[in-house]
Amino acid sequence: MSIFHQTFKIQSAMRPTFQDVTEQVEQVLNGSGVEEGILVVFSQHTTCSVLIQEASDDLDYWGTDFLMQDLVGVFEKIIPTCRTQGQYLHPGPLHIEAARGRDELPAWSLNTDAHLRSVILGRSVTVPVEDGAMVLGDFGRIYFADFDQVRARERLVRVQIIGE
Amino acid sequence: MSIFHQTFKIQSAMRPTFQDVTEQVEQVLNGSGVEEGILVVFSQHTTCSVLIQEASDDLDYWGTDFLMQDLVGVFEKIIPTCRTQGQYLHPGPLHIEAARGRDELPAWSLNTDAHLRSVILGRSVTVPVEDGAMVLGDFGRIYFADFDQVRARERLVRVQIIGE
Amino acid sequence: MSIFHQTFKIQSAMRPTFQDVTEQVEQVLNGSGVEEGILVVFSQHTTCSVLIQEASDDLDYWGTDFLMQDLVGVFEKIIPTCRTQGQYLHPGPLHIEAARGRDELPAWSLNTDAHLRSVILGRSVTVPVEDGAMVLGDFGRIYFADFDQVRARERLVRVQIIGE
Repeated sequence: MSIFHQTFKIQSAMRPTFQDVTEQVEQVLNGSGVEEGILVVFSQHTTCSVLIQEASDDLDYWGTDFLMQDLVGVFEKIIPTCRTQGQYLHPGPLHIEAARGRDELPAWSLNTDAHLRSVILGRSVTVPVEDGAMVLGDFGRIYFADFDQVRARERLVRVQIIGE
Repeated sequence: MSIFHQTFKIQSAMRPTFQDVTEQVEQVLNGSGVEEGILVVFSQHTTCSVLIQEASDDLDYWGTDFLMQDLVGVFEKIIPTCRTQGQYLHPGPLHIEAARGRDELPAWSLNTDAHLRSVILGRSVTVPVEDGAMVLGDFGRIYFADFDQVRARERLVRVQIIGE
Repeated sequence: MSIFHQTFKIQSAMRPTFQDVTEQVEQVLNGSGVEEGILVVFSQHTTCSVLIQEASDDLDYWGTDFLMQDLVGVFEKIIPTCRTQGQYLHPGPLHIEAARGRDELPAWSLNTDAHLRSVILGRSVTVPVEDGAMVLGDFGRIYFADFDQVRARERLVRVQIIGE
């Protein structure tokens, strides 16, 4: 039994981005030599999620998968994009002060919607590994979602594998 | 330390179905011989979820647990059942073309609501195993949920156990 | 490779409570001696969740983190607090009868909202462990959420670690 971990980077835009990271995760799995076990894909960013969804073929004008844009549409109804202070309680005055202390622009903290949307979807997925491959069914793909709309950022995708 | 995996099948209906699979999962655990570790119950279907919930005793006229039907009621408000094309972006023309190539009826792709509801609940649960048993508290049960309303289908429930 | 588990208790109030349990979990991890692996923080209570979120500095008049209260605000819109029977299907007559058999007050079963909110957030988080520490990024914290508003209760937080 062994443990293996590796990270890779992706680049998000200033809109909700959903990146299919299945192939990168497969490469990590192949490099680990693990044949049987479990694999965790994890986001250490609290405005991001990892999810398993079908690739739905069609892309919108921004390049976003139709099914993912439908998900954004649902979230927009129940957790509207944060456009101004006072729309949510967060970010409060202490949070803004702390952000200034880190040389962050106050407006960068207007990502309340991203914190709330991403926590509902969850920070990780756990996938069974059998015969050296992830078991994702015929259509399942792993996506790294970044809901933060205030900044384009480089994000870290973390893969942890336990098995033999 | 050892790894154990097994699958079993369930049959869903043409409405959101929630099947209590706790006993089947317990049988898999007992067969594994694992006394201490973790157990993952996983759906490889992207319109299905696995969840832990209390069994709520009462069933509605369709045989659905009251608490599960309340969950469907919440989803119906925020992610209405997909009844016709154009209600969501998905399924788009490329998706329908791909489905035709697999000899699927176009209407079978009108399961957008199921993809969205299930991804919010998640594809798996991870349960601690102690003294040869899952730790689910006094009332916790494991349910396999199928949100797809366009087809009744046989579904695969996947159990992965790591421990000793 | 070894398996380690431990529990600790927290006290909830008669309102949605979110307790930062990061330090307690770190103590469990340190006591385990595990340097590389995965760590699961799990709720065996079906009205509670475990989640990873940023600490947002500001607290409301009840002592609730602003970002968590914003989450409650979203849930209040889509899954309103259960105030009376008939608002949801659950709790039904068989459930009330079973509760009476356990010497529970019938009103204690009016926690439908808590069951539904918590299952959407999930019952556990899985966190990678590297170099003897959880990988939570710069701002991530682990919270134990209790959504049950009908009773203040002692709750069990369960930590399971696999690694070496």
